[in-house]
Amino acid sequence: MAARRLRYAMIGGGPGAMIGPIHRLAARLDDRWELVAGALSSDPARAARGAVECRIAPERSHADWRALIASEAARGEDRIDAVVIVTPNHLHAAPAVAALEAGFHVICDKPIAATLSDALAIERAAHAAKRAFVLTHTYSGYPMVRMMRAMVSEGRLGTIRTIQLQYAQDWLARTIETGDNKQAAWRTDPARSGAGGALGDIGTHAYHLGGFVTGLQAEAVFSDLSAFGEGRTLDDNAHILLRYAGGAKGMMWLSQIAPGKGNQLRIGVYGSEAGVEWDQENPNQLRYTVIGAPSVTLERGGPGGLGGDATRTPAHHPEGYLEAFAQLYSDAADLIVGFDDPDASGQASMLPGIEDGIEGLRFVAGAVAAHAAERWIERTNWG
Amino acid sequence: MAARRLRYAMIGGGPGAMIGPIHRLAARLDDRWELVAGALSSDPARAARGAVECRIAPERSHADWRALIASEAARGEDRIDAVVIVTPNHLHAAPAVAALEAGFHVICDKPIAATLSDALAIERAAHAAKRAFVLTHTYSGYPMVRMMRAMVSEGRLGTIRTIQLQYAQDWLARTIETGDNKQAAWRTDPARSGAGGALGDIGTHAYHLGGFVTGLQAEAVFSDLSAFGEGRTLDDNAHILLRYAGGAKGMMWLSQIAPGKGNQLRIGVYGSEAGVEWDQENPNQLRYTVIGAPSVTLERGGPGGLGGDATRTPAHHPEGYLEAFAQLYSDAADLIVGFDDPDASGQASMLPGIEDGIEGLRFVAGAVAAHAAERWIERTNWG
Amino acid sequence: MAARRLRYAMIGGGPGAMIGPIHRLAARLDDRWELVAGALSSDPARAARGAVECRIAPERSHADWRALIASEAARGEDRIDAVVIVTPNHLHAAPAVAALEAGFHVICDKPIAATLSDALAIERAAHAAKRAFVLTHTYSGYPMVRMMRAMVSEGRLGTIRTIQLQYAQDWLARTIETGDNKQAAWRTDPARSGAGGALGDIGTHAYHLGGFVTGLQAEAVFSDLSAFGEGRTLDDNAHILLRYAGGAKGMMWLSQIAPGKGNQLRIGVYGSEAGVEWDQENPNQLRYTVIGAPSVTLERGGPGGLGGDATRTPAHHPEGYLEAFAQLYSDAADLIVGFDDPDASGQASMLPGIEDGIEGLRFVAGAVAAHAAERWIERTNWG
Amino acid sequence: MAARRLRYAMIGGGPGAMIGPIHRLAARLDDRWELVAGALSSDPARAARGAVECRIAPERSHADWRALIASEAARGEDRIDAVVIVTPNHLHAAPAVAALEAGFHVICDKPIAATLSDALAIERAAHAAKRAFVLTHTYSGYPMVRMMRAMVSEGRLGTIRTIQLQYAQDWLARTIETGDNKQAAWRTDPARSGAGGALGDIGTHAYHLGGFVTGLQAEAVFSDLSAFGEGRTLDDNAHILLRYAGGAKGMMWLSQIAPGKGNQLRIGVYGSEAGVEWDQENPNQLRYTVIGAPSVTLERGGPGGLGGDATRTPAHHPEGYLEAFAQLYSDAADLIVGFDDPDASGQASMLPGIEDGIEGLRFVAGAVAAHAAERWIERTNWG
Repeated sequence: MAARRLRYAMIGGGPGAMIGPIHRLAARLDDRWELVAGALSSDPARAARGAVECRIAPERSHADWRALIASEAARGEDRIDAVVIVTPNHLHAAPAVAALEAGFHVICDKPIAATLSDALAIERAAHAAKRAFVLTHTYSGYPMVRMMRAMVSEGRLGTIRTIQLQYAQDWLARTIETGDNKQAAWRTDPARSGAGGALGDIGTHAYHLGGFVTGLQAEAVFSDLSAFGEGRTLDDNAHILLRYAGGAKGMMWLSQIAPGKGNQLRIGVYGSEAGVEWDQENPNQLRYTVIGAPSVTLERGGPGGLGGDATRTPAHHPEGYLEAFAQLYSDAADLIVGFDDPDASGQASMLPGIEDGIEGLRFVAGAVAAHAAERWIERTNWG
Repeated sequence: MAARRLRYAMIGGGPGAMIGPIHRLAARLDDRWELVAGALSSDPARAARGAVECRIAPERSHADWRALIASEAARGEDRIDAVVIVTPNHLHAAPAVAALEAGFHVICDKPIAATLSDALAIERAAHAAKRAFVLTHTYSGYPMVRMMRAMVSEGRLGTIRTIQLQYAQDWLARTIETGDNKQAAWRTDPARSGAGGALGDIGTHAYHLGGFVTGLQAEAVFSDLSAFGEGRTLDDNAHILLRYAGGAKGMMWLSQIAPGKGNQLRIGVYGSEAGVEWDQENPNQLRYTVIGAPSVTLERGGPGGLGGDATRTPAHHPEGYLEAFAQLYSDAADLIVGFDDPDASGQASMLPGIEDGIEGLRFVAGAVAAHAAERWIERTNWG
Repeated sequence: MAARRLRYAMIGGGPGAMIGPIHRLAARLDDRWELVAGALSSDPARAARGAVECRIAPERSHADWRALIASEAARGEDRIDAVVIVTPNHLHAAPAVAALEAGFHVICDKPIAATLSDALAIERAAHAAKRAFVLTHTYSGYPMVRMMRAMVSEGRLGTIRTIQLQYAQDWLARTIETGDNKQAAWRTDPARSGAGGALGDIGTHAYHLGGFVTGLQAEAVFSDLSAFGEGRTLDDNAHILLRYAGGAKGMMWLSQIAPGKGNQLRIGVYGSEAGVEWDQENPNQLRYTVIGAPSVTLERGGPGGLGGDATRTPAHHPEGYLEAFAQLYSDAADLIVGFDDPDASGQASMLPGIEDGIEGLRFVAGAVAAHAAERWIERTNWG
Repeated sequence: MAARRLRYAMIGGGPGAMIGPIHRLAARLDDRWELVAGALSSDPARAARGAVECRIAPERSHADWRALIASEAARGEDRIDAVVIVTPNHLHAAPAVAALEAGFHVICDKPIAATLSDALAIERAAHAAKRAFVLTHTYSGYPMVRMMRAMVSEGRLGTIRTIQLQYAQDWLARTIETGDNKQAAWRTDPARSGAGGALGDIGTHAYHLGGFVTGLQAEAVFSDLSAFGEGRTLDDNAHILLRYAGGAKGMMWLSQIAPGKGNQLRIGVYGSEAGVEWDQENPNQLRYTVIGAPSVTLERGGPGGLGGDATRTPAHHPEGYLEAFAQLYSDAADLIVGFDDPDASGQASMLPGIEDGIEGLRFVAGAVAAHAAERWIERTNWG
């Protein structure tokens, strides 16, 4: 791939951050992106330190994201192509809107925002500016997840009947947010996370995955939310039922308090002809069963093999989370390079975007409402 | 164990039956039981053929279970101690009541009956006759399931927060009941199975398992039932939420139409201190995780080791379904031998009985009602 | 199966024994056998106590196995059909020969004897008496092991190229034989076990399994034996190479000192067209891969399904060690009932017998010689 | 990490290559390296095409590696720091020696060379030039492999008793080298690969892993080599026994013809106190068992957690082959930056180098000799 590397600036992700460094690793892997500017922290000292670590030139490092955008917008040919936003949820919308209005593409960590109105503001800005907005639902970058999606769309499962979703962790089993764990602190704080706790943090991933794989739209939700951690107001465990278009039923368990669960995101899709299952902690395989036949283990192949081109290593040389994340960055590069091209590639069309972000927040709103009302809430009443 | 073998008669379970032979194998394994009489089929020829295969003397074989009970009641010292009932659900109550009234103990396949009124009739008969009634919820006989129960009751999990239950199969993925599959035919027929399809057939097992392991009583149920098989009226897939006493939440997936699922009964219990998981298809192990510590694989030991005395083989020599079933028969023998003893053993107290049977039917009724009403149904309104 | 139960006497297996109770459970499971006599211990008090526990009539219980055989030989129609021998290795031959000479069939725990000359004496006695001799290589009773054998013989693997055998345990990781562990004491004592330690105790199982599954004869052996336990003279870890007829190569790891290994018997057979693998600790499955196709998980079916008739429970209801053992007893019953019939069933022909016992001891002798000589030893020089 | 990126040139690895692109991905991941020059192919057109794809400036791209080295040596401050060699085995030595003599560090794919004399020539050149030579035994870069090594060196396993090594594949199960598979063609050709087939290609990895994890030196080898592929002269399956210093015994299965095996590299190390196991296809976990305690699953933690700093993602977000490879490149950067510093980091000391390369070839020579002689060969006679 001899095309030039795209240039990006990062907002958030300074020293001590969790997801910022992951974005940088992922952006680098396929050599399509170059980090050249940033507002890595609102604390000037941290911002400067982060810039040194990331080899960002001092004149392109800022503590204020507004200054960053203004400064980049004023540059010539070497200005950034895109802004990557990795701040806490409630700080996504303002820089995203500003970046879009300044003509930059935006890549944003999930969930899209803490509130639906923020998300809708981003949507308006992106449409107005005709710029790309990519939401990093990482798990949709895994080759075997994309293979599941292809299997469903090719009809290999028949009519979908039930979708089992699980995203279970245990890192909030104790109330660590009262200590100095910043990740726990903002994720359990409604002011910074929004109406959902586990719902927003991991539920949006699981919900997106269900739609991504099956292509089905959820039409109603029921939920039973719990906040087991002492003093917590946001859910840390959620039991959710879904009804999809076409009669498929779904079930989702979200937990951040289940001892023994690390990052156990699982999906099983069962149709009238076959079933297929995937587990994020063993991501290079699918278990696939046609009714009446023995179960088959489908292993990710090398590039061009099972799992398609969304892979880099030969079969049986395991890939993981960074490679899935990198796939989104490569796809985003394709999308941006071809943004004005009406024949954008199908690969790019798999990228999660604004619609997915809004849908995720609607799901959170629906689940919160269903819990409160103790009844099914139709999608027309989600948020 | 030098005590005499107990004698039993079997009702149902003739040539072609599925669960009858399993009961006979299980009863034989530990040498506590002897099959001496039967009404194996209402078809005289089949009953006679079955009797020969089972080495039942011709004079103790009948086609009519009433004749069996009358005949045995009239015998002297060598008469049976107990009746084992393995007919379809709607045919449990009448022989059970008659056997109890004749002074025999009863061992009955689950669910206890097709209707709650039938179950209550059995309860009255057992109380009046002061005879034992044992319900074969097989999975409670597995050593590692009993170990889970002990771990919970010893407080090793802390306060229980969430219980994940799954019982998934695929044998009804196609509508085989329209062919000559008798098992499928009666299980999909409300007249013979009762109000629940998968709910009654496998849901009662999963529901019992949740209560058995945690000692918690369910207080409310919500459900979303489906009948995916063409023409089916009973549920073949169920998504169920539970609320337990003390604030624990439960989730249950039941399916008989999920391709790739054989007999996948799984339970995970997650508390404030630790979590533990078990899988029927790999029954000799538990996965146990204390918060912050690595996951441990607890393997069933030999007799007296991990898993206690409910086992027969040295550690690492796998046991399975028959051994779990046999455990119920051994425990039933203990129960019956000590029936007039007020100090009956704790082991025996683990045996599922009438209360469990009634509780199971109430659960089915509650889940059916919750589905119809689309709201939580409190246990006071379960049937 | 309405034929009469066969009657047997047990020699060894009194209170405190490990394998004797397993034989009794296995013999009982399929209702083809009845224990009616015994010399369960050479200690009269233990013999008597064992007889009570096993419901053996006092007059048919002895402390001296010679008295047992004489007494049974003198009985009328109700005398035993067979003798089951579960004493330590060096005490197999004398009662086996005596029982055969008295006209009884013999079922004997493995290895056949502590010395080759003892084994040959048994062979002569069996041939002279025209009685059956069955050696309980338990693992050949597992349905999925038999399925592997069928797959190989049907050519589904092509020409066999390599056979990987592993039997690893850890129960002798510490030198527990110096304490009161009787099992450890006789197994580490050359006077009671013979020339092989792990070789005789578990190596004969693994070696038999390789031949049973592939039908190939080993033609040369090389080995590296170790006795890691302090003061041990017999091997507790063995690394063995094999060359089979037709060019296939084999590799075998035996260990009783490998921490983390319980009873990990595994076999993998790889041919020119496909490979297949089995693991005793997960015995209801095979992993099968045809070159170029995804791996398939073959699950044991119910009776008549995958795994054939050597099974009792429906698919996905796990069977284990006792069921495999019981299969040998059922097959032995078939063999004995049809013993004078030249058209003995194929099923029975799978039963390990004298030839297998002698072959096992020759393997031990060959491995011991190869270790000493540090070179390949051809089978013509095995013992 | 604000230090400048190191610059490298690649020799080999042009369009169609397998391992060259992997090196480039790995070098990029941690942002310590920059590809600036190359002789990607001896075919000028392919070299040029590769250079465009890799964004190498035309004036720094060559078809002749001699021209590359001369040209880079003549450059000023922006010249390369190191040369990466990814040609077939027999073409490693000449460019390595030349690069070292020109003052460049060298990173070379394994095995070090096709012949021992070539390897010794590299050794002389590196010592004379005082430049670093890094051999990419990728598997030593996995965090959990490094954790195993630490566990052994801390004595957590006690005295090592047995080491089980397995590296099994199936990609040469058919004789694909007769078609157009270039990878298969050179690997099965003694002129290009050296004396070992599977021995050199995967055996050197497994052998290195055994020594890397345990710190033990092998002192004798025995082997049984096979060439099952029709017309093949080099081994495609090898059964190998090892004796290590201190009395530990080893066993190694190598195969490239075992159907169902993808890239199954496994190691188990069993000591007097505990055992630990690792599987390349599930690389984020160890199974660890202290005698008498239940087995524990040790999961790779995030940076600074279990597995130390050789990791990039939070726990339970799987890493794979590229990350392990990248670790070698990061360690190599540390090594090179600190090359003149006598206090080079311990991390860097884990890097495989010339000694490991020579040791690997000696192992191949020893195993080939042992097979021919049919006896143990002491390490003093390895090549």
